[in-house]
Amino acid sequence: MAASLVALDKIVSLAKRRGFVFQSSDIYGGLNGCWDYGPLGVELLRNVKEAWWREMTYRDDIEGIDASILMHPRVWEASGHIGSFADPMIDNKTSKKRYRADHLIEDEIDRLRNKEKEAEADALQERLDKAVAPEDFYQIIVDSGIKDPAGGTNDWTEVRQFNLMFKTFIGPVEDSSAVVYLRPETAQGIFVNFNNVNQSSRQKVPFGIAQIGKAFRNEINTKNFLFRTREFEQMEMQWFVKPGDDDKWYDYWLEKRQNWFQEFGISPDKLRVKPHAEDKLAHYAKAAVDIEYLFPFGWGEVEGIHNRTDFDLRQHAEFSGKKIEYFDQGENVRYTPYVIETSIGASRSTMMFLVNAYDEDEIGGEKRDVLRFHPKLAPYKVAIFPLIKKEGMPEFAQKLHQDVQKQYKSFYDESGAIGRRYRRQDEAGTPYCVTIDGQTLEDGTVTVRDRDTTEQIRIQAESLRGWLGERV
Amino acid sequence: MAASLVALDKIVSLAKRRGFVFQSSDIYGGLNGCWDYGPLGVELLRNVKEAWWREMTYRDDIEGIDASILMHPRVWEASGHIGSFADPMIDNKTSKKRYRADHLIEDEIDRLRNKEKEAEADALQERLDKAVAPEDFYQIIVDSGIKDPAGGTNDWTEVRQFNLMFKTFIGPVEDSSAVVYLRPETAQGIFVNFNNVNQSSRQKVPFGIAQIGKAFRNEINTKNFLFRTREFEQMEMQWFVKPGDDDKWYDYWLEKRQNWFQEFGISPDKLRVKPHAEDKLAHYAKAAVDIEYLFPFGWGEVEGIHNRTDFDLRQHAEFSGKKIEYFDQGENVRYTPYVIETSIGASRSTMMFLVNAYDEDEIGGEKRDVLRFHPKLAPYKVAIFPLIKKEGMPEFAQKLHQDVQKQYKSFYDESGAIGRRYRRQDEAGTPYCVTIDGQTLEDGTVTVRDRDTTEQIRIQAESLRGWLGERV
Repeated sequence: MAASLVALDKIVSLAKRRGFVFQSSDIYGGLNGCWDYGPLGVELLRNVKEAWWREMTYRDDIEGIDASILMHPRVWEASGHIGSFADPMIDNKTSKKRYRADHLIEDEIDRLRNKEKEAEADALQERLDKAVAPEDFYQIIVDSGIKDPAGGTNDWTEVRQFNLMFKTFIGPVEDSSAVVYLRPETAQGIFVNFNNVNQSSRQKVPFGIAQIGKAFRNEINTKNFLFRTREFEQMEMQWFVKPGDDDKWYDYWLEKRQNWFQEFGISPDKLRVKPHAEDKLAHYAKAAVDIEYLFPFGWGEVEGIHNRTDFDLRQHAEFSGKKIEYFDQGENVRYTPYVIETSIGASRSTMMFLVNAYDEDEIGGEKRDVLRFHPKLAPYKVAIFPLIKKEGMPEFAQKLHQDVQKQYKSFYDESGAIGRRYRRQDEAGTPYCVTIDGQTLEDGTVTVRDRDTTEQIRIQAESLRGWLGERV
Repeated sequence: MAASLVALDKIVSLAKRRGFVFQSSDIYGGLNGCWDYGPLGVELLRNVKEAWWREMTYRDDIEGIDASILMHPRVWEASGHIGSFADPMIDNKTSKKRYRADHLIEDEIDRLRNKEKEAEADALQERLDKAVAPEDFYQIIVDSGIKDPAGGTNDWTEVRQFNLMFKTFIGPVEDSSAVVYLRPETAQGIFVNFNNVNQSSRQKVPFGIAQIGKAFRNEINTKNFLFRTREFEQMEMQWFVKPGDDDKWYDYWLEKRQNWFQEFGISPDKLRVKPHAEDKLAHYAKAAVDIEYLFPFGWGEVEGIHNRTDFDLRQHAEFSGKKIEYFDQGENVRYTPYVIETSIGASRSTMMFLVNAYDEDEIGGEKRDVLRFHPKLAPYKVAIFPLIKKEGMPEFAQKLHQDVQKQYKSFYDESGAIGRRYRRQDEAGTPYCVTIDGQTLEDGTVTVRDRDTTEQIRIQAESLRGWLGERV
């Protein structure tokens, strides 16, 4: 059964039952747009981050950093977030409800299509695509006679821009001079550190700076599990190049990043590359594509590759009054580098790997749920079972488990029928199950069962760590 | 030269120059109480976190989680943070400056001691130790005639409690119903997930839940580099036990955690255990000790071991209306577990490992700065140099470097005199430097230089990865 056809609620339910992902503050009814990773989820997330970090920073021309979430408020003036990182919102005066103006219009388009009024829907879509200013959205809502879904009236206020940054106050006084924001993206932490990293690392252009960290957006409509959340984790790399070399490197990173997905088991037919239309590009971008994955709810962006030009470094130079340039000693020239950005969601790609791994099949007439994670991403690398709870098998199994666990996450289980123990590990995505049986005590061999094929081979217990080392 | 005698500013300066730690938003003049980790710092921090995570979760009775930073506001009512997580603040009406009342009094005590008025200082200290309510602090300030350090007047307001939690608004409306807080500690994320983890992992008491994550406190006085910051990372483990077994486990974890510090190179004479006086215990604690390290500014807490009793689980049960209990199938009893907490700062312990590693010595009459990190914590595990830039040495060195880097962070350097290259790695804390020379090309051996002893041995190049594997 193809993962893309599986209902999302099946995966959300498995995720909770097996300890991948829980609602945040679950016992208090949850906090909208926030999620907690449970015992299996935290290992999956850690492995996704580790895989990315190794890919990006275990090479000579990329440096890692870890910048703070709270940053100086001028950063967000320079980046444009204070001015333009906003959604158009409208209030209904009767019901006192607040809506995203563009979502109200999208819902109206859906309604028209459901009634097979395709021409009207297309016309409305066209107007929506062109809408930029708050008044544009307001006029469409009024012209289309869109009513409040809650109260049914069209007693609307004007449309206003609502900034998506979470704001707080630093220091003892709550006034405008103390306002700081939770970063809405990690990229700016890299730009403002360009000089520090350049000076301390002595890198030569082209080079990159990579970072993994949390970011926050006060989304009005959170949805689709880990896909659109208010708190999330990003893995971003900014690649600094000589102006003129940017197109070449843009192509390089687009290809390289697609390969990474495939290396970890995402099949090419569930991946697509969607360029941004030229008139829809962000204010800083010369070119941009989304790498999209086919989620149960449809195609969704997992990573963006962007040519940000020299916009960010120039803005920070202007707003800080500091020079932000690169001096090429060989060519004796000084310039502001262009930036190619690769920006992937850690939370979102963890969801992708979870969805992608989910499968249902039949083993000997019995149905099973199985998570076919790449071995490097699997929370547990191996599970170790004594076949029965006597004759020295538990002791042998425990000893082997303790030995393996010095290096790899290993799970020990001695309770219940062996088939049931296999099923539990299939659901957890553990790639290999090792069983200690009567023969083990005679010749030191154990069986290793493959999660995906369920085939079993016998290997020497003492070679298990090495055997795993080649695979995980 | 003992690290504890080194001036902190020397370490802060090395940290910036070599890319361990930068001021947050440096080009904008910094953001007080926030720091960014540079290329070497992020690896050190990652290694510290990995060492802790492996110690705590690569065992059968501790599960990891990763809870969100934003939590339901009721969490902080239940935990007591909304009511009592506050500092006493006082304003001067003339200068409009705000101070922590207890700090004003501490400064006055210092002044008295400087004037050798020991008896007066002792008396004031005794009053300060007993002060609890805002009025207590106010009365001491008035009685002692303490003046505003800025304006020189004693035109004080009353003392008020100032909550240390950062507050923000979630959703589109900024009103009291939308207030959420940045978590001031990670522990509560564990308590509210107790049921979810217990159900999904099928652990039996005693067991633990471990978490690494950011926390935030709006400290009025940030100080001492990474020691007291507004944004920081914690590594916390909550160990759930049967009531009555708590004292035994408290002792177990106190010993175990001290051993961890020593395993990673902290010498016992720079560590001490300081129990909290019974009348100074936090409202939730039955017993508590600080594990302190001797920093350049004196002894400072790095980790706390606390017996939190069943306070937190009971509070969350009461505030959420959900049962939070453990059912012991073997003994057929149901109870609210007691909690032993081990709580260590990731940022603070990274600073400890940095300070602890710093040393100055002389090599052949030449001074050097060296960071004597434990090999498992060192940012780079190895540096690989061709002795000279010809005769095939760079090619051989590059190939070896690329091979090693598949597994371990390796640094390639071919520029400058070999002695200078060694010095740069000493400053970065790289434990081993490998040099490719003329003999390498004949017999395939390389020299490995030890950072601490500077002694060199020859080994086969092809065995380097295995050789490193045993050490790092």
